[in-house]
Amino acid sequence: MVVVLEKNVTQEQLENIIKHLEEYNFAVHKSTGEEQIVLGAIGVQLNFDTRKIKILEGVAEVYRITEPFKLASRSFKKENTEIKIKDVVIGGSEVVMMAGPCSVENEDQIFTIAEIVSKAGAKILRGGAFKPRTSPYSFQGLGEEGLKLMRKAADKYGLLIITEVMESSNIDLIEKYADIFQVGARNMQNFPLLRDLGKTTKPIMLKRGLAATVEDLLMSAEYILSSGNKEVMLCERGIRTFETYTRNTFDLSAIPVIHKRSHLPIIADPSHATGLRDKVLPMARAAVAAGADGLMVEVHHEPEKALSDGPQALLPEQFAELMIQVKTIAEVIGRKM
Amino acid sequence: MVVVLEKNVTQEQLENIIKHLEEYNFAVHKSTGEEQIVLGAIGVQLNFDTRKIKILEGVAEVYRITEPFKLASRSFKKENTEIKIKDVVIGGSEVVMMAGPCSVENEDQIFTIAEIVSKAGAKILRGGAFKPRTSPYSFQGLGEEGLKLMRKAADKYGLLIITEVMESSNIDLIEKYADIFQVGARNMQNFPLLRDLGKTTKPIMLKRGLAATVEDLLMSAEYILSSGNKEVMLCERGIRTFETYTRNTFDLSAIPVIHKRSHLPIIADPSHATGLRDKVLPMARAAVAAGADGLMVEVHHEPEKALSDGPQALLPEQFAELMIQVKTIAEVIGRKM
Amino acid sequence: MVVVLEKNVTQEQLENIIKHLEEYNFAVHKSTGEEQIVLGAIGVQLNFDTRKIKILEGVAEVYRITEPFKLASRSFKKENTEIKIKDVVIGGSEVVMMAGPCSVENEDQIFTIAEIVSKAGAKILRGGAFKPRTSPYSFQGLGEEGLKLMRKAADKYGLLIITEVMESSNIDLIEKYADIFQVGARNMQNFPLLRDLGKTTKPIMLKRGLAATVEDLLMSAEYILSSGNKEVMLCERGIRTFETYTRNTFDLSAIPVIHKRSHLPIIADPSHATGLRDKVLPMARAAVAAGADGLMVEVHHEPEKALSDGPQALLPEQFAELMIQVKTIAEVIGRKM
Amino acid sequence: MVVVLEKNVTQEQLENIIKHLEEYNFAVHKSTGEEQIVLGAIGVQLNFDTRKIKILEGVAEVYRITEPFKLASRSFKKENTEIKIKDVVIGGSEVVMMAGPCSVENEDQIFTIAEIVSKAGAKILRGGAFKPRTSPYSFQGLGEEGLKLMRKAADKYGLLIITEVMESSNIDLIEKYADIFQVGARNMQNFPLLRDLGKTTKPIMLKRGLAATVEDLLMSAEYILSSGNKEVMLCERGIRTFETYTRNTFDLSAIPVIHKRSHLPIIADPSHATGLRDKVLPMARAAVAAGADGLMVEVHHEPEKALSDGPQALLPEQFAELMIQVKTIAEVIGRKM
Repeated sequence: MVVVLEKNVTQEQLENIIKHLEEYNFAVHKSTGEEQIVLGAIGVQLNFDTRKIKILEGVAEVYRITEPFKLASRSFKKENTEIKIKDVVIGGSEVVMMAGPCSVENEDQIFTIAEIVSKAGAKILRGGAFKPRTSPYSFQGLGEEGLKLMRKAADKYGLLIITEVMESSNIDLIEKYADIFQVGARNMQNFPLLRDLGKTTKPIMLKRGLAATVEDLLMSAEYILSSGNKEVMLCERGIRTFETYTRNTFDLSAIPVIHKRSHLPIIADPSHATGLRDKVLPMARAAVAAGADGLMVEVHHEPEKALSDGPQALLPEQFAELMIQVKTIAEVIGRKM
Repeated sequence: MVVVLEKNVTQEQLENIIKHLEEYNFAVHKSTGEEQIVLGAIGVQLNFDTRKIKILEGVAEVYRITEPFKLASRSFKKENTEIKIKDVVIGGSEVVMMAGPCSVENEDQIFTIAEIVSKAGAKILRGGAFKPRTSPYSFQGLGEEGLKLMRKAADKYGLLIITEVMESSNIDLIEKYADIFQVGARNMQNFPLLRDLGKTTKPIMLKRGLAATVEDLLMSAEYILSSGNKEVMLCERGIRTFETYTRNTFDLSAIPVIHKRSHLPIIADPSHATGLRDKVLPMARAAVAAGADGLMVEVHHEPEKALSDGPQALLPEQFAELMIQVKTIAEVIGRKM
Repeated sequence: MVVVLEKNVTQEQLENIIKHLEEYNFAVHKSTGEEQIVLGAIGVQLNFDTRKIKILEGVAEVYRITEPFKLASRSFKKENTEIKIKDVVIGGSEVVMMAGPCSVENEDQIFTIAEIVSKAGAKILRGGAFKPRTSPYSFQGLGEEGLKLMRKAADKYGLLIITEVMESSNIDLIEKYADIFQVGARNMQNFPLLRDLGKTTKPIMLKRGLAATVEDLLMSAEYILSSGNKEVMLCERGIRTFETYTRNTFDLSAIPVIHKRSHLPIIADPSHATGLRDKVLPMARAAVAAGADGLMVEVHHEPEKALSDGPQALLPEQFAELMIQVKTIAEVIGRKM
Repeated sequence: MVVVLEKNVTQEQLENIIKHLEEYNFAVHKSTGEEQIVLGAIGVQLNFDTRKIKILEGVAEVYRITEPFKLASRSFKKENTEIKIKDVVIGGSEVVMMAGPCSVENEDQIFTIAEIVSKAGAKILRGGAFKPRTSPYSFQGLGEEGLKLMRKAADKYGLLIITEVMESSNIDLIEKYADIFQVGARNMQNFPLLRDLGKTTKPIMLKRGLAATVEDLLMSAEYILSSGNKEVMLCERGIRTFETYTRNTFDLSAIPVIHKRSHLPIIADPSHATGLRDKVLPMARAAVAAGADGLMVEVHHEPEKALSDGPQALLPEQFAELMIQVKTIAEVIGRKM
C-alpha cells in the first residue's frame, strides 16, 4: 500500500499515520519528494480496507498495490487453466461452442435443438431448467423434469450440458444431471452460493454481473477457487450503461484484459449482451476475433413460440452460418473450432 | 402495447404482425398516421416480452404501455403503505432513523453503540451478523452469536433490530431475533431468496442493486409482495457510475420518483452510498430534504478498530449532530423525526 | 508517481524502468517489499502521461500521486473563492438563487418572469439567447435581441444576468450584456472556448458534462484559471447513467466532494438534472442541504407555451414555495438565503 | 406520438389533454383498452418535446414514435452512403484503414510513419495538428506547421489526410490541407462547429462522445447533414462506464446498430477505446468482425518519445501484423481490405 500525505501534513499527523500503519502490521518506508511525503506500507494483506488510512488526518490518497485476488491471478499461476470434460477442453487451443435454447420447454423442443446444434459443431448444450426471471409472473422453468430431458437429449447427440444453478439447495440435484454449473449475472455476488459451489467437483461458469468490474468478477471467482474448486471459467455477457439501443453493452475488451490478469478461460455470450437476434452474429464473430475461449449462444427452431428470450435466439440456419464464420476467424488467430 | 410499423411496411407484413398479436391474445386497433401505421395491442399481459413483436419484419418500434409491476404500483394502491412495528411506523409522517455498526463484533461494542444511537433518538438498531463481503478473506460476521448480542442490546435500549439475510437457509434463524429483514444490494435479484422472504411475516427492507433501475427495484419488490408479504420498504444506497471520488453515486432523485410510482416507503443509506464519513452528514441531510421516509447510517465509537466499514461510520458526536440537523429539515417539509 | 513492479521482474527490466524514469526527469527511490518492488518517482509533472511507464516490461501498476490540476485545487488555495458582483457574493455565507426561463422568448415573457423571481428573492436572472439544442430543427434562441431584452428586464428588477456562451466568436457580444458567462455541459471540454473565456474579466459558471468526472470538471476549470480568469464557479446538473425515470442522475455527493478538493463555489441545477417540474422542488431542497453555494432553476409563468424546456420549469407559486423552504434549510447549516 | 393515460383519468383531464394535442397541431385518435385509454397523436414534428404532454394531469406515459433524426436515417435513404475521395471509397465493400501518429511532431516523424503505414496498406494518414488535451499544460499540437508537414508526407506516400478541427475559426485553414475533417468526441455536441462544418465541401468523420447514445450521435450527424454537407462518416471510440481496467468501454455493438438505423459509414477506433497498445490488436480484429467500414489506429515508430498518447500507439511490426489479420477477417464477411 502506498500512502500519499498532504503537502502541509504536520509532524504530529505524520507520526499518527505511521503509528496506525504499524498497528495494522505494515512495515513503513518513508520517501520525501519535492512537494509531498509518500509512505510505503510493506506487507501483503489481501483484504485490508485502505479507507482505514484514507480517513486519517494528513492523508491525501491511498493506493493498494497488490491485487485483491490471488488464486485467480495470472501472477499466482502463469499457465492458462484448461478445463477438461470428457473430450472437450475449455481454455485450450480450441474455441468451444455452447448452444441451445434459453429454457428447456419439452422433450420435442430440446431434442430438436440438441440435434441442430450438435450437427453444426457445438460441443455443449445450454438450457435452463431453473430460470431467474425479472418478473414473478414469467415462466420459471421446468425444474428437475427439464434437467432430465436435457440429459437425455445431450446423451443422444454426444453433448455436454451446462445449466444454471440459482440456490444452494439445488446444487445436489443439478450436479446429478449437468456437466457444468452456470452462475447467472444476478448471482455473481451471491457469496453463499459461490462458497457452496466451491465445494463441488464439477466445473463452474461464472457470468459477469451487470454492474461488475472485471476486478469484481475475479474476486467472485476467488470465492469459488478459495473454497476448493479450481475449475472456473468466466463469461462476459454485457454490462449496464446508458445506451438503450442494445439490451446491454457487450464489453469485449474484457476478453484481452482478463487473459492478461488471470489464467481462467473466458467465454462470451452475445445473445444476452445484445438481446436481439440480428446483432448476435456480428458480435459472436467479434468475440472470437477478440480472443474468447468459447461462445454461448441461444438457438431455437421456433423462436416465436419460445417460453423465454425467443427474440434473441438464432434460427438453425443462422447458427450453422455462425459456426462457419467463427471457424475461419478462429484460425486467423491460430485457434481451432 | 403500442406497435409502430416501418414506413414502407408491406400488406403481407402488416397482416403477419396482426396475426401474431392475435395469437398472443391481444386485440388489435389500427391507426394510420401521416407517415406510419401504429397498432394498439389491447390486453394486459404483465410479463409479455415485447421483443417477440419487435423482431417481426415491418416493425419499427414496440412500446409496453403498462408498468411491469402491479402490487408495488401506486396505481394499484393509492395510499402510502405504513409499516407498524411496535410503536414505530415506517412510511408515516415520521422520518425513522436506523443506526448502528456495520457488523456486530462483540458484546461491549454492540451495547455501547446501541446506547449511543438510542440516546440520540434512533428507533432501530442496524448491525450485520452474516456479512456479504467482496473478498473471501474478509471478516464474514459472528453468525447467530451476533444476532443474540444484538437482540440483548436492542432490548436493553428499547430499539428494534434490522439485520441482513443472505440465504434462504438462514431465514428461520434470523426471524427469531430480528424485527426487519434486510436484503442487500447484491441480492436484490436473488429471486429464490425474495420468494422465500415473501412467505415470512416480518417486514423486509430491500436495497437497490448497484446496476438496478428504479423499475428493477420495484419488480424485485413485486416478487416479495406476490409471495404474500406486503410489508416491504425500499432502500436507495447508491448506484454504480463512472465517478470515482465517491464509492457509489447516491441517486437521491429516486426518492421522489419512487414516491410517485409506488406506495412503498423508501429509506436512504448515505453511509454505503458515499463510503466516507465526512460525506455522510451532508448526504443524510439531502436525503431527508428530498423526502426519504427514513435513514440508515453506520455509527461506531471506535471506527478505527471496526472489523468492517469503519471508515464510513459516523462518530457518536457526529451522529448526535446529524439527528439535530435532520430533525429541522424534516419539519421544513412537514414531517417529524 | 508510484510505480509498482511485477513480482517476477528481472534485473534488466528494473534497470530499464529506472532509466526511463530518469530520462523523463524523475528522481527514483526504490523500496523493496515482501513480494514486490515499488519505485517512487519524485518530481512534479502536472501533465505526465503515466501510461508511458505502464507499458514498460515489468511494470504492474502506476499511480499518479499529485492531482492533475493545480490552480483549482484546495491545496493550492486554502480559502474559499468568493465571487463578488455588485452586491451579490457567490461562494460566501449566502446561498444564491439564479432563476428564470430556459430561453428568452419575447419582452413580455422576460419582464414577467424577472418580476416574479425578483420578488421571491432571486438575485440573478438566467435565460438563454443562444441555445444548444440536440436537434437542428429546434428553436435556437433570439440571439442579440434576447440579450437586450434580458438586460432591460434585469435592470428594471435589480437582477444580475447569467447566460450561455456557445462559441468564441460570441464572447464580445455577450460580455456587453451579461454579468456571468455560462458554459454548458456539452461545451465543458470545448478547450478553445475555455481558453478564450479565460481571457475575459467576467465571472464564468462552468457546468459539469454528462460524462465528466469531478476531476474532469476541475481540469476544465484549470483551463480557464490558467488563462487568467480566476472567477470560476462550477455547476452540478446531472450525469448520464443507466436510470431512465429521470433525465439525468443528479450527483449531489459532488457538492461536498468539490468543497473538499477545490476552493471554487459550486452551484446546483435541479431543473436540468431531473427534467421534470415535480422533481425540482425536492431536489433543490436536497442540494441546499448538501451544501450547494447556489441554485439555478427554471421558472416560467406559462410553461405550456415555453419554446424550450417548459416541462421542467417551475410555476411562479412553486418557485415562491421553494424560496421559503430552502431558506430554512440553509439556516440549518449556518447559511443565509 | 402515443399518449398513455392513467387508469383513473377523469373526463375533464382527458378533454384537456386532447385540447393540448390539437393546439400543438396533432390529430388525435382515441383507443380504449381493457384498463387504459391510449391516444395516438398523428403528425410528424421532429423536434417536439414530449415532456409537454407528459406533465399534463392524467397522462401516464408518452412515447415518441418517429425517430428524431431524418436525413441520417436508413428509412430516409435506403442505400449505404459511399464517400469517394480520389480512389478511396468509404462505406463500400472495402474496409478502409486510417493510421498514423496521435500528433504530428516533426518532419522526420511524420514522414517515417507515413511510409510505414502506407507500405502496410493504409489509405489515409491520421495525425493531429490542433489537439484537444484534458490538461492545459499538455502539448497542444504544432498548428499550421503540422498540417503542412502532414500534407507533404501524405503526398509523397500517396495517402489521404484526416485531421481534427476544434473550432470554427480554423475550418478554412484546415480545409486547405486535409481531405477529411475529424470532429473529436468532446466536440460531438459543439453545435456551432457542426453547423459550420455542414457548409464545407469536404467529408467529415464525427466521433461519438463519451456519454453519447447512438441516437445522440445520429442527431449530431443530422446537424451537419441539414446544413448541406452529406458526406458524413461516424466513429465509435469507446464510451464512459464504471469499468476502469480500460480507458473507455468499446461499444462494438454500435456498429451493427448504426448499420441498421442509418446509411452512414461507421469507423472504429480501438486505440482511443482501449488506451493501451496490447489491447488494440484484438479489438481492431473484433471491430472488423463486427462489420466496421474502416479502422482508425495510432502508429508510432518511437512511441516512448511520442508527445501524446504514445502508450496506445502500435509499433510498426504490430501494425503490419494487424493489416494481415484484419484482411482475412474482412474476407470472412465478404469484404476486402
